[in-house]
Amino acid sequence: MIKTDPTQVEFEKWRRKNLGKVTSGLSRILNRLNVNQSAVVTGLLKAMRYSLLGGGKRIRPLLALAAAEAVGGETREALPVALAVEMIHAYSLVHDDLPAMDNDSLRRGRLTCHKLFGEATAILAGDALFTLAFETLANCGRKSLETCRRINLTLTILARAAGALGLVGGQALDLAMERRPAASPSIWPSVAEIRDMELRKTGELMAAALTGGAHLAGARPIELRRLRQIGLNLGLAFQIKDDLLNQAGDPARLGKAVGSDAVRGKATFPAVCGAIETERELNELTEKTLELTLFFKYQGRNLESLIVNLVDRQI
Amino acid sequence: MIKTDPTQVEFEKWRRKNLGKVTSGLSRILNRLNVNQSAVVTGLLKAMRYSLLGGGKRIRPLLALAAAEAVGGETREALPVALAVEMIHAYSLVHDDLPAMDNDSLRRGRLTCHKLFGEATAILAGDALFTLAFETLANCGRKSLETCRRINLTLTILARAAGALGLVGGQALDLAMERRPAASPSIWPSVAEIRDMELRKTGELMAAALTGGAHLAGARPIELRRLRQIGLNLGLAFQIKDDLLNQAGDPARLGKAVGSDAVRGKATFPAVCGAIETERELNELTEKTLELTLFFKYQGRNLESLIVNLVDRQI
Repeated sequence: MIKTDPTQVEFEKWRRKNLGKVTSGLSRILNRLNVNQSAVVTGLLKAMRYSLLGGGKRIRPLLALAAAEAVGGETREALPVALAVEMIHAYSLVHDDLPAMDNDSLRRGRLTCHKLFGEATAILAGDALFTLAFETLANCGRKSLETCRRINLTLTILARAAGALGLVGGQALDLAMERRPAASPSIWPSVAEIRDMELRKTGELMAAALTGGAHLAGARPIELRRLRQIGLNLGLAFQIKDDLLNQAGDPARLGKAVGSDAVRGKATFPAVCGAIETERELNELTEKTLELTLFFKYQGRNLESLIVNLVDRQI
Repeated sequence: MIKTDPTQVEFEKWRRKNLGKVTSGLSRILNRLNVNQSAVVTGLLKAMRYSLLGGGKRIRPLLALAAAEAVGGETREALPVALAVEMIHAYSLVHDDLPAMDNDSLRRGRLTCHKLFGEATAILAGDALFTLAFETLANCGRKSLETCRRINLTLTILARAAGALGLVGGQALDLAMERRPAASPSIWPSVAEIRDMELRKTGELMAAALTGGAHLAGARPIELRRLRQIGLNLGLAFQIKDDLLNQAGDPARLGKAVGSDAVRGKATFPAVCGAIETERELNELTEKTLELTLFFKYQGRNLESLIVNLVDRQI
């Protein structure tokens, strides 16, 4: 399909430019660590690089940058939180894939970190990526006092989103749900339980990317509240879209098999509510999210395009 | 033994008072998280509490508080970093004990976290404790701009100490050393390698506790440099003392069996250099550390007592 929509062309240019900045930023930080280190530490850094730079859509960093723009700031102001949030995302995938957790062998078509580097190194690489996220954000250049204050709140936002009541709690809920006997729908989780889990596991970090990026760019409280709501909705919509694609996507375009959730008896939105109700929920969430984005007018155009792309995707 | 040394009596009073503050601070933070949470998240918080509040000497928090005093500040100024550094220490023990790492079943005479709560919960509890450390420090009350700046640098100090080149790197080095064939001394690590590992694994976090605590209390750069050196020396001395006690301590007083390092063929200082050379190294390090502490004069008295207690301990 040839894209001729001018907004879409502009957005695609924006996306590529910023993807480049994010990737080179992440790479530069890892390179800086690897100076005169022993073979063992170099090995650890290699596992970190494999997990951080081996693909991925970089959704969360782009959200952070688009949010900075939406509140009238510049993308470069949000870069530290964009990099930090991607490191947190990468760490969470490495730990989620571990044998004691989801026990996955493949991620983005490649071996998972523990399959390639061993379990101990994968745990440590995850831990180190997580630490690096906070270091990257806390230590972003020569700072004015006002910047220090902004960084502090942004760190708090990120830590909360990543912690026991956010990302980590979401993964604990997800594991607990998967371990209920899959064959017995009577004890399947309710829609409310699934929503709570997905909000923690996906929504909180997307919300933190948006509010963190905007806050570093000097956002007002009303803007932060709206962006948080956008992030939570988007996280949920993103996850629902994932479930729908897993259920009925095109394997050729997805580049992976579909139907794996059903085979594993996973309690997803479509499994619990049916595809039609789930589609309705997705449309409603998308509508609500885009309506919230209108608040940012023209400055929010890249944020809007990003959201549309995420919920309309076929892959 | 009845202690009659007045300095020691004073210090013991100081230690108990501050131990109480640290324990109640840690407990309060965990309690605040556990409001209206589901059974699964409550279970995660329980594993965090078990690992954070189940004993331990609280050496790192006390170092942070003593350092604040040493630079003319008050212990309460350093409390956020004292709590954060103990959370980081607790997380590192939970992850180090995992089956893929040291595979330990007991810690402080109780079951390790993964033995009691399962491996997945232990990984997640460690991750969440680590996150909570950064949240605690980033979000410490209503702050002046100057405090924000101090918190920023303190966060950077802690993250560096905990990261790939510090604590995590040290654990990677430790694992790599243990996995060299224990029976073949020809490929045993050198003293320099052991020292590098221990400095990262123990020294960096002790140094971060001292410099972080002092920095929050407004330390000058020269004081921070000295405290860092004290922390690195102390970490090494502490570890050497541990090795010596494991080799020749009194099992009745230690409350655990001795000689386990030798049985596992672990490359420790005494194993590589012999007990006499190791004792000499310990004395030298202690001397150097106490000499550095003199710089802080009377304000450094509790720091000095703390150091003496750590290297003179029989348990």
